[in-house]
Amino acid sequence: MYQLLLPDLQLMLAENDEQGMREFCEALFPAASAEILLEVSPEEAWRVLSLCDIQRLVEIFAYFSLPFQVELVHLMDRTHLSRLLEEMAPDDRVDLLERLDPDHVESILPLVAQAERADIRKLLSYPENSAGSIMTTEYASLPKDITVKEAFERLRRQAPDRETIYYIYITDDQRHLIGFLTMRKLILARPEQKLSEIMTREVISVRVDEDQEKVARDIDKYGFLAIPVVDDSNRLVGIVTHDDATDILEDEAEEDQQRLAAVEPLEDSYLSTSMMTLARKRGVWLFFLLGASVLTAWVLQFFEAGESDSWLIMFLPLVLASGGNAGSQSAALVIAALAREHFTLKGGDALKILNRELLLSSMLGATVGMVSFTAAWLLTDEMRPAIVVSSTVFLVVVMASVAGAALPILVHSLHVDPAYMSTPLIAALVDVIGVIIYFNVAFLVFGQYPPFEM
Amino acid sequence: MYQLLLPDLQLMLAENDEQGMREFCEALFPAASAEILLEVSPEEAWRVLSLCDIQRLVEIFAYFSLPFQVELVHLMDRTHLSRLLEEMAPDDRVDLLERLDPDHVESILPLVAQAERADIRKLLSYPENSAGSIMTTEYASLPKDITVKEAFERLRRQAPDRETIYYIYITDDQRHLIGFLTMRKLILARPEQKLSEIMTREVISVRVDEDQEKVARDIDKYGFLAIPVVDDSNRLVGIVTHDDATDILEDEAEEDQQRLAAVEPLEDSYLSTSMMTLARKRGVWLFFLLGASVLTAWVLQFFEAGESDSWLIMFLPLVLASGGNAGSQSAALVIAALAREHFTLKGGDALKILNRELLLSSMLGATVGMVSFTAAWLLTDEMRPAIVVSSTVFLVVVMASVAGAALPILVHSLHVDPAYMSTPLIAALVDVIGVIIYFNVAFLVFGQYPPFEM
Repeated sequence: MYQLLLPDLQLMLAENDEQGMREFCEALFPAASAEILLEVSPEEAWRVLSLCDIQRLVEIFAYFSLPFQVELVHLMDRTHLSRLLEEMAPDDRVDLLERLDPDHVESILPLVAQAERADIRKLLSYPENSAGSIMTTEYASLPKDITVKEAFERLRRQAPDRETIYYIYITDDQRHLIGFLTMRKLILARPEQKLSEIMTREVISVRVDEDQEKVARDIDKYGFLAIPVVDDSNRLVGIVTHDDATDILEDEAEEDQQRLAAVEPLEDSYLSTSMMTLARKRGVWLFFLLGASVLTAWVLQFFEAGESDSWLIMFLPLVLASGGNAGSQSAALVIAALAREHFTLKGGDALKILNRELLLSSMLGATVGMVSFTAAWLLTDEMRPAIVVSSTVFLVVVMASVAGAALPILVHSLHVDPAYMSTPLIAALVDVIGVIIYFNVAFLVFGQYPPFEM
Repeated sequence: MYQLLLPDLQLMLAENDEQGMREFCEALFPAASAEILLEVSPEEAWRVLSLCDIQRLVEIFAYFSLPFQVELVHLMDRTHLSRLLEEMAPDDRVDLLERLDPDHVESILPLVAQAERADIRKLLSYPENSAGSIMTTEYASLPKDITVKEAFERLRRQAPDRETIYYIYITDDQRHLIGFLTMRKLILARPEQKLSEIMTREVISVRVDEDQEKVARDIDKYGFLAIPVVDDSNRLVGIVTHDDATDILEDEAEEDQQRLAAVEPLEDSYLSTSMMTLARKRGVWLFFLLGASVLTAWVLQFFEAGESDSWLIMFLPLVLASGGNAGSQSAALVIAALAREHFTLKGGDALKILNRELLLSSMLGATVGMVSFTAAWLLTDEMRPAIVVSSTVFLVVVMASVAGAALPILVHSLHVDPAYMSTPLIAALVDVIGVIIYFNVAFLVFGQYPPFEM
């Protein structure tokens, strides 16, 4: 909705209207300013942002995507950059620094104040995709022996630079996490009560080396605003907030979607990924799947397909496609169930799924088979080809559905992302097995590979 | 992690240990109790829950999936049910009632207190998937003329039954939304300041008939805890909270994933969807795609494929699969870009995407084509088949990649969900066009359809 202001901004840039650009920073919500600045070039965006107050710059900057942030960083002078890094939220700052060239980071760090520098080095040291790498160190914490009234006074001092003050963590002298309070509970308490009387002692926390997806799912499951992150000795080291959790869940969903379509997950958005990266992330799968297709061609060779009746070839793509379609459906559903429903693989559940797929694909295969019987009969005017095509469709749909369900379960039990069992991969497997089924059914119905003697 | 307690619960159920079951409700976090109860049958879960205090029952109940909630509702006596409905959060309550048989709802409503009844009827009246259907009416609101000190006193009274008190909406006598305050700002303010002095006057809100996905994306984009929902005259009617937004975004991602695999989106999880529903949601696409395959068979008939050389048939699945794989990759990437990146379709962006796909698929097609040249040469020991196969692979990869990008853009511009351009659908289109390309390339290279004269 703010896009309407884009022409105004472009005019200011053309006229080099510094006063106007300064007002642009101040007058709008940071998110709105960011939205409009994304529409101009990074150079133009930086011309505007360099005129903003540093606080406002930090707020707007937080709404940009990482690739755009990196482009801006390369345009900044060292003074702006060091101020920006000091003021940014610690988790966003680490995300940004991880994207920069390590040499560049080492040259920037001396510009940053001592306290932030230690924090940056520590957060950078946690392994990628761990709770430690996504947490922020700006949490609100209080000791247990103060009163509610004192708590409010201390929170008032902590408020300006904490990510959230609505969840308050109670720690002892050694920073051990011993309790938890919501702001709501604090507001409802009497001013003279001690925090130790009203705090919840059983705190749900995550370990600093926990996988980020598990952390995000916990925040989502419990409906938390944030979850505390602790080290081996239960010392509070940070928090992960709900908005970061949402971003992680969206990223994971997008990764799954890309894997399902046989693309190695991209780190950036489609339009900001370079052609070479796209070629690599797609090429690796295209070659692998081509290998599977060569196998199908090799198998077809044995059936001397070229010497078969025309109808047998006519319906070859149809029977293979039926299998591919059915397999892609069951794979997608089972993969979503494994990812989303926190499906813990017990023997019983796996069997239940395979049972369902067997029953369901028998129903679907039988009806799709009947329709293809009619189609084959109409196109060839003969009964026996129709019998071959429809029986094959039935068998291939059942085989593909069960394989589409079984393979994700299998790789999941080997602790591999089930989304690697992509639609094209299932289709490639169906091609190989489908060809064998098809020619063998034809042999059974005709007693020979039509129209030749064995 | 709480699963370890399941054997204890099963023992309590076997021994009908009512005291133990009551403790089970009280001793654990509601989310943990819910997690364990999901492992026993609905009948057993209800035996435990019926012994819980009503407040605790409501808290645990909120963690169940809708299908499980519906099963429990059917087991409940009317007293429990009416109390539960009165105490539930208004948005969750409406979600549940929408799942029940309308006659059943009408028989339950008289049991519910007058105030809740009016609220239920109102929320039930908003169209499905609108902001109105997902909002809650339990928001914190205050008039503008009171002081910060008075505000805290009023919030203390509102706190127990508000979904959030961390966002406070300022309304006038006619409930018009005129301002907004965070709890953080309230804590930082001086007690004697008037709310009108410290409130933000420009409030980002959504209309009650706005699409729920748009609402969820706004909450996500701005990192809000909640967004206010207003009617035509800017009167505050409810709020949508961040946890509901996350659920919506996850549901939408799952829907997209299912559409991409040619499954009509399921309303429930895979395991709790009935076989008949699954058969219907999958069958409709299988039949449609079968129709496309019949078209491929019909086209193949014209090329008298059965009278061609063996090698031509051998590599038919390979060239079709190459196209299907490349098309599925570009379709998945473009669909994600359209959905996730709030991609507003301008002519320039669409052209940019198609340009990228053309260039990228030429690179990918050329390299995959070269590998298939080698494979075809090795398998047939002849040069000309290898030329036909590799040229076709090149053309089919380019055609499929561009089509896989263009079709989602096209349907998106017609305001249809681009995810309908599923992998199997792209593969089906590639089959038809791929067959035509393949036989025509063979004709060009050999001057005839091998090995016969035209």
